[in-house]
Amino acid sequence: MSFTLNDLPLRDDLRGRSPYGAPQLDVPVVLNTNENPHAPSPALAKALAEAVADTATGLNRYPDRDALRLREELAAYLGHGLTAAGVWAANGSNEILQQLLQAFGGPGRTAMGFEPSYSMHPIISRGTGTAWVSVPRDADFRIDVDAALEAIAEHRPSVVFLTSPNNPTGTALELADIERVARAAPGVVVVDEAYAEFRREGTPSALTLLDEHPRIIVSRTMSKAFALAGARVGYLAAHPAVVDALQLVRLPYHLSAVTQTVALTALEYSGELLGAVADLRRERDSLVDWLRSEGFSVADSDANFVLFGEFEDRNLVWRRMLDRQVLIREVGPPGWLRVTVGTPEEMVAFRDALLKATGR
Amino acid sequence: MSFTLNDLPLRDDLRGRSPYGAPQLDVPVVLNTNENPHAPSPALAKALAEAVADTATGLNRYPDRDALRLREELAAYLGHGLTAAGVWAANGSNEILQQLLQAFGGPGRTAMGFEPSYSMHPIISRGTGTAWVSVPRDADFRIDVDAALEAIAEHRPSVVFLTSPNNPTGTALELADIERVARAAPGVVVVDEAYAEFRREGTPSALTLLDEHPRIIVSRTMSKAFALAGARVGYLAAHPAVVDALQLVRLPYHLSAVTQTVALTALEYSGELLGAVADLRRERDSLVDWLRSEGFSVADSDANFVLFGEFEDRNLVWRRMLDRQVLIREVGPPGWLRVTVGTPEEMVAFRDALLKATGR
Repeated sequence: MSFTLNDLPLRDDLRGRSPYGAPQLDVPVVLNTNENPHAPSPALAKALAEAVADTATGLNRYPDRDALRLREELAAYLGHGLTAAGVWAANGSNEILQQLLQAFGGPGRTAMGFEPSYSMHPIISRGTGTAWVSVPRDADFRIDVDAALEAIAEHRPSVVFLTSPNNPTGTALELADIERVARAAPGVVVVDEAYAEFRREGTPSALTLLDEHPRIIVSRTMSKAFALAGARVGYLAAHPAVVDALQLVRLPYHLSAVTQTVALTALEYSGELLGAVADLRRERDSLVDWLRSEGFSVADSDANFVLFGEFEDRNLVWRRMLDRQVLIREVGPPGWLRVTVGTPEEMVAFRDALLKATGR
Repeated sequence: MSFTLNDLPLRDDLRGRSPYGAPQLDVPVVLNTNENPHAPSPALAKALAEAVADTATGLNRYPDRDALRLREELAAYLGHGLTAAGVWAANGSNEILQQLLQAFGGPGRTAMGFEPSYSMHPIISRGTGTAWVSVPRDADFRIDVDAALEAIAEHRPSVVFLTSPNNPTGTALELADIERVARAAPGVVVVDEAYAEFRREGTPSALTLLDEHPRIIVSRTMSKAFALAGARVGYLAAHPAVVDALQLVRLPYHLSAVTQTVALTALEYSGELLGAVADLRRERDSLVDWLRSEGFSVADSDANFVLFGEFEDRNLVWRRMLDRQVLIREVGPPGWLRVTVGTPEEMVAFRDALLKATGR
């Protein structure tokens, strides 16, 4: 008799589950996980190597447990009068979200989100023993704030997730809507702004609300705009009391000295990196225009991806795209597909493959 | 009225707590957190920089979610017929332990340890909602296996922690004792071998038990023997079914591409690094002999630290040592202090300070 997972004391709620994650397939055009298509420049790669060489000579010692210098520089990057006391960093925004749920969620408590949205919100909620309440978005993928307030009154969630720009739809929220939710919510309101740097002119950030609303938390990441998905750096801005709370649940020395160094070095290149973001925003807007000109339905996007449809059999379209070496993502509402904005060359390949895959 | 932690929905069990961690004080002789005193060699630092330069050019992409190459090389390092399927890696052994408790502990379940031992075991247990049962060690800091079996029968823990060599006492366990516990335990038995490479000749590793006992899990770290505390790399060896279970709770892309690269590069230098470990073991044995010759009580040590005493007022001795610029750790059973084995020069400073601090 062979030993299997069934012979281990696995938690009942995990039995039969599969590990979360998009397929990591080796194809020429990878547009499925909202990565930034621009690799670090040779200058940045060289600066990273030099910074790590310097850090390496002290790697026998534990890192700064509070990552103070990194938090100072992240605060300076964000502006809005923030300081290190109101900023916290971790291994990707997933760890930020997990720490928030460890502090403010957990058994006997509820988290709420407006779906379709980032699928890790319910997964990490459940992983920390927090009940999950899903409220559907409207047909335009916007949050119906009246329905949101009703759901908040009914479920009294200790954590509310608002994703803006929303993944996988690209939809941004109005500040007035965020404020209405924050006033009604009895606990914290996490505005997940992983894609903030890609928003269109005039779309606001919830960072402007922090002074007035100490229970609003804005989470960010260096994975997308800073093109550092491989380095795993997420962070948040919030009232310093929130940071105090997270220090009670963070694992000691959770953020390596190398990760801190890599993030600090990338922040020095923010001018260069945000220049590439401007290019991606233009590419995104052209993609939306082109998809509409070809007769597809397209959600307005403030992110580095576009949700489009609608397809009777989206899996068939997804597979036909993959046959043409273009990997996109089968995610979000039924009938829709999501494509990440890549380089101009990758978008040519995408357009060509899509026309063929849909027989246009 | 100012906004404070009390205005946030902090979990009740966290109220009034302080963040865990030893003081990070800037003194010349730091012997308080069991760091390896030997910084990476210039050759290793150069290799790390070159490897990171190479990795940097792909940092816009997510890392290998399964860290497969690193797990292969860790398996090769451990030997015992292990393969990647039976090895898992995370951001420090703290994250390994947290993932184990997320999979096998949690609300309604119990974890058990034999204290004094590594203080993160109860902290991470409680952090994951797992009840903690502490069983005291005997006067020689050994585990009384009969008492352990009684406690296991009474509490039916889904996770049992055995630390060998034990922190903060330095005490190793006999394989026969580990096997008795594993046969009696209804769930998994985690043998925390963070200090394994420092054990004395003839002291065994629980790795030899894995084939016969699929519910035994051996956790390790690169922080100590590999002198990489700053890089945050912990790992475990276990039956592949355990690794399958952890993949259900790990955050996707939890381990950065840079961390994977740093760990792989350090593994290439394991010969050099383990040579320095041999020096530290000799230094440790001399330290034990010297402390005994000076009339102190000293626990046998298979680790890179030594627990010694007994002091009527250990805090006074700790402070007097700090006044002399030597930072040790006030931890473990009352009346005892723990000192990390440093360089020969650091140990001269320690001996001198201790004689003065204790008026000998």
